[in-house]
Formats: sequence, structure tokens, C-alpha cells
Amino acid sequence: MTSHQTNPSRSAPTVAILGIGQMGLVCSGMVSTDFAKSPSAPSSAAGLAGAVPWKVVLWGHSEDEAAHLAQHRTSQRLPGFVLPEQALVTPDLRRALRDAEIVVTAIPVQFMRSVWHDAAPLLRPDARVVSVAKGVENSSLLRPTQIVEEFMRSLGDRDSRARVAALSGPTIAPELARCLPAAMIAAGENDEFTKQIQQVFGTSWLRIYTHRDLVGVELAGAMKNIIAIAAGILDGLNAGYNAKSALLARGLAEVVRFGVAMGAQAETFFGIAGVGDLATTCFSPEGRNRSCGEALGRGERLETYLARTPSVVEGVATTKSVVELAKKLNVDMPITLAIHAVLFEGLDPIDAIGRLMTRATKAERVG
Amino acid sequence: MTSHQTNPSRSAPTVAILGIGQMGLVCSGMVSTDFAKSPSAPSSAAGLAGAVPWKVVLWGHSEDEAAHLAQHRTSQRLPGFVLPEQALVTPDLRRALRDAEIVVTAIPVQFMRSVWHDAAPLLRPDARVVSVAKGVENSSLLRPTQIVEEFMRSLGDRDSRARVAALSGPTIAPELARCLPAAMIAAGENDEFTKQIQQVFGTSWLRIYTHRDLVGVELAGAMKNIIAIAAGILDGLNAGYNAKSALLARGLAEVVRFGVAMGAQAETFFGIAGVGDLATTCFSPEGRNRSCGEALGRGERLETYLARTPSVVEGVATTKSVVELAKKLNVDMPITLAIHAVLFEGLDPIDAIGRLMTRATKAERVG
Repeated sequence: MTSHQTNPSRSAPTVAILGIGQMGLVCSGMVSTDFAKSPSAPSSAAGLAGAVPWKVVLWGHSEDEAAHLAQHRTSQRLPGFVLPEQALVTPDLRRALRDAEIVVTAIPVQFMRSVWHDAAPLLRPDARVVSVAKGVENSSLLRPTQIVEEFMRSLGDRDSRARVAALSGPTIAPELARCLPAAMIAAGENDEFTKQIQQVFGTSWLRIYTHRDLVGVELAGAMKNIIAIAAGILDGLNAGYNAKSALLARGLAEVVRFGVAMGAQAETFFGIAGVGDLATTCFSPEGRNRSCGEALGRGERLETYLARTPSVVEGVATTKSVVELAKKLNVDMPITLAIHAVLFEGLDPIDAIGRLMTRATKAERVG
Repeated sequence: MTSHQTNPSRSAPTVAILGIGQMGLVCSGMVSTDFAKSPSAPSSAAGLAGAVPWKVVLWGHSEDEAAHLAQHRTSQRLPGFVLPEQALVTPDLRRALRDAEIVVTAIPVQFMRSVWHDAAPLLRPDARVVSVAKGVENSSLLRPTQIVEEFMRSLGDRDSRARVAALSGPTIAPELARCLPAAMIAAGENDEFTKQIQQVFGTSWLRIYTHRDLVGVELAGAMKNIIAIAAGILDGLNAGYNAKSALLARGLAEVVRFGVAMGAQAETFFGIAGVGDLATTCFSPEGRNRSCGEALGRGERLETYLARTPSVVEGVATTKSVVELAKKLNVDMPITLAIHAVLFEGLDPIDAIGRLMTRATKAERVG
């Protein structure tokens, strides 16, 4: 039974989306897509087929950007995307959250804390939060849902774990904006909530699987961006598909080692939110982290690249957090360390790749 | 200790390569690359650094093709490749195998049996065989090294398992021909042999890891071609990177299920010869199996495509074998079954993809 059934007095349940970057925008499209959900929806939700048109409210940090989106229904951040007709845009956080049963947090990880400081007290007591952010906070080394939970607990909620989930997977946003087929994972410990996400966000072109390993799904989403920067460096050096695929496999191995040390299940990383997201991020020319790496591989300085890029390159900050956590956990992460050295210690990308290639030859070890 | 040390009377140990298709050609380049092997070679081989220039003899089934290769040192099968100066080419199987301590079998799987029927009796008693073929034989449902072993045993060898290995990984041949960086796995139960492969075939641009799961490495190489046909179909339908990456993840899951049922270790499929090879085969525009799938996705008939393609598309025959094995083992393989239906039962590729997308939504299951 989904929560809106327990509140029959309200006619239209609401999804609030915090953040009007690429993922925030495409999430509004997912919720608004007219989709006969019954054929593939779980049986508990089958009775609701087509009966629940969710309202969507988007909130953006920048008033100018929110105003532009509200008026023109398009965004420079995602060319080709048109905001669904029924979606509202507001710069007023209170208004966005007032009626929201589900809140999507689509804010870059390093900016989440300041937004959630204000947002958490405005949540309805029964509101649930699904994160589409991918990273690990530098200051706290927390995952996105942990940041949200921290605020929920500080406001007295003892059952915050049941109110958070992550929605992740191989989702290059410009493809979602064009309704090209994709698959995602709704991960969380509350099965009722992940099934609700499956039903509310699933569409004819987006297949959502549920998963219980929230730690693994969030870490997979965070760490694939680091490997994608490395993949981009190989592209910048014109190293080819063989090298990039070997890097993907070796990168996956260290992601698994790290994830397991952090309490995740190894097999999560071999699924859609793991190797699936890793593959699309390493190979799609539209990925931001891969593109950043490609610029570095071609000799551009990180500062120069970031200055000319409107979007946040999550992998840069994530590399910092993961290196710090890996030290604490004593996990061997040669690729992540090499990327850290390129990003923050002035190591030449060519030397970094050379260093990775000439590590002592030995038997392959996975996990 | 490598076997040529036990035979000090011969000055130059020999590698024979059976097959002058793409992989046979690039293998001749690997062996002939002048490479100071000591820095990364295992300690047992370090004393041999640069001291053992292996001779290379190539044998080709087609006398015309072998003559062209011998004379012009190039092949239409691999534009840009130049045969190493010291490599000999012969149409005489006896001469190719006479002095060979290591034999590379680089013949398409469905043609191996006829060649090995003649080759096996010509092997030196101490000769070892490394397979670079990727598939499963239709008539016997055997892997490449199993076919070779069958002949060895029929000739009285009780220790055939110690004399075979596989060399596999993400190795799009045109990239290897240009000496772009790559990594491969030498898999077998005889550590001495796999370390020898590491030393003889490793170069400054090709890093070789050893592995003991021969079953897993061979099956990974065979089955990635099936998933690559599916990936190509998505390309032919312009489905995008998200869809292809989700397919890669779901494909990996069914490859693992099948592999484990066949006696392989799950983790092998998450390494370089597994997900690494799968990624390059699904994403490189130069992959033959992906290209075949792309033609099917665009509406071309299989017969038409195969008729205009000079190379063997291994995944087509492999699909037949794997479907047969999966039935015997009762393994659920929706993608492989869908590809089988497209290839051999006249199913429209669009319907196949639709069928995969609309399977009942559920929790993600890996392995």
C-alpha cells in the first residue's frame, strides 16, 4: 500500500524536485510521463494503474534560473528538454515542500548540506526522500542519503532510514530527455518506498528495478565518476577501446574492494547501478566526468576546464573523499590514487597512465 | 623455469601460430616485439630478459592467403598490420609444428576440429597450446582448449590439462596492430605455462595477467559475443548508451549465471577477460559481433550480412551452442534466447528488444 492511499483526502499527491540541473529536469519528465503502469507494476500497485497523476513541483537554488525555466519551459543545461506542462517551478522552498510526499534531491553532493539545512525542517512528517545525486561529501565523507538522514535525525526522527532511498543507474540525461530506453535501480531498506519509486518514476521507456543495498548503489554511483575521469584521460591520449575496457575492469575491481570495505554487497557493483552506470559513464561522449578527463588527457589544466564548464564535475570532489576513506579503511585503490595525483598533486596524466600500466605483473585479483 | 631452459641444445625456441586471421597476425606481433621483459616479468623468468628471441612460424589454411602474407607481409584482414620481419609463413602444417614449443590456435572455433585432426599428431610431445579463439563448438558443445585436449588424449596424453591455456581479453585487433595499450589474461591450470605466456606474449604495450579459471575465461570470451550482437541491435535502433549499458549489466548477469552452472568462478567474469572484453566488444565500432547486430538492428537479413562479411562472426554459432547448453543446465538466459530468436527463428529485432524491456519489473538479481 502506498502512502497516498493512506491519505485519501488529498486528490493529487505531489513530488517535489530540489535542483533543476539535468537530473532534476529529467525526473520531472519521468513522473509526468503518461504511462499505463499496470502491466509491469508490482501487484500491490496494480490497482492504481493510471489513477494517480502525481503533481510535480521543481525548486531551483538560482531564482533567475528557476524563473527562466518556469517561463520558457526549457533549460540551457539540457538542450532539447521541454518541461512537462503540469510541472510547477518555484524559488520558494517552503512552497515546494509543503505538499510533497516524495522529495527528489537532485543537488550536487557538495551543495546538499546548505540546501537541506533549510529544507529538512520544511518536510512533511511523512515525506520520503529519494536521492539522484552521485558523490561523497568532502567535509563529512557521507553519502547523499546519509546527509538527508542526519538532518531528519537531528529533527527527532528515529526512523529516518525508512524515509530515504536512492535512484541510480546508467542515465546520461540527454538520452532520458529524448525518452530513449533506460534502466535504473531504486535502492533502500524500505521495500514499500522503493516499490513506490518504481511505480511513480517508471515509464514505458524507463525500467526501474528495486534493490536493498543502498550503500552499494550510492557508492557505485559516486565512484564510477572517478573511473570515468581516468577513462576520459585515456580518450584524451587516444589510447583506444582495449585500454579503456581494461581500465573499466580494473576500476570495477577497486570499486568493489572499496565498497565491500564500506559495508556494501559486492554483487551490487555488477548490476545496472554498478557496471551498467560505469560503462555508460566511461563510453558515452556526453558524460561530464569522462569529458573532464579527456580535457586533462589532452593537456588542459583542471582549473581551466572547470572554469569553462557550466556543470558540476562530481568526480573531482568525490576523488578527494574516496581517497580519504580508502586510507582509513586501508583499501588498495591504484586508479583512484592516480586520478587524485593528476587532479590535486600536479601529476602528468601520461605519467599516471604509465604508472598504472607498469605495476608489477601478477595474477588477476578481483574484489 | 620455462621449458626452453630444459632444452638448452636448441638456440631459438619457436612459437607456431595456426591461423592467419586478425588474432593470429597480432599474436605474431606480440611475440616479436622487442621488449625488456625483466622489470615486470615474474622473478623466475627475470634472468632471461631479452635473451630469448622466440622464432615465429605462421600457418594458414588458405595457401593463397599464406603466400600473399609471406610475400607482401600484410593482410587484407587487418589493414595497417605489417608482419614482423623474422616471422615465417608456411602452408605446411608439419613444418609449422616441427620445432614449436608453443602453439597458438587462432582458428575460428567451428573450424578448429578439422585443423586439429591433422595438427595434433604433428605436435612435439612437449608442445603446449594456447587458444585465442572465442566460442563453443556446435557439434560437441566444447570450448576451444577442450577440443585440443580431446585430440591430445586420443593420442595417449594423460596430462593434456597441463598443456593447454587460453589467452583472452579486450583485444580489438586493429588497436593491437597499432600497438595501443591493452591487457589480457593467460588462463590455465599449469602456472608454469601461464607465466611463460605472460613472458613470451607480454610487451611494453600489452600487459598479461595470469589466471587459473580456464573455464571461466573461455566462456567469458565466447559469451560476450552474444551480448555484443544484442548491443549492436540497440545501436542499429539508435537506442543510446543508457540502454546499451543496462544491457551490458543484464547480459553480464546471465553470463555469470551460465558460467557458474558450467563450473566457472563468478569473479572471473568481473575481470579483464569478463566485463573488460564485454565492454570493448559492445562499444568499439570495430567489433565484428556488434557490427553484425547493428546491421540486424537496421533491418538487414543475417544471411545477407554474413555473405558480405569476410570475417567469421563467432557469436552467431556460439549463440546456438549456449542456448543448447543453457537448456541442459536449466539456466535462465533471456538475452541469449532473444538473440537466438532473432538469428534463427525470424524474430524482429525490435520485438526482441521490446520483449526484453517488458519482462516483469522486479528486484534486480545478479548471478
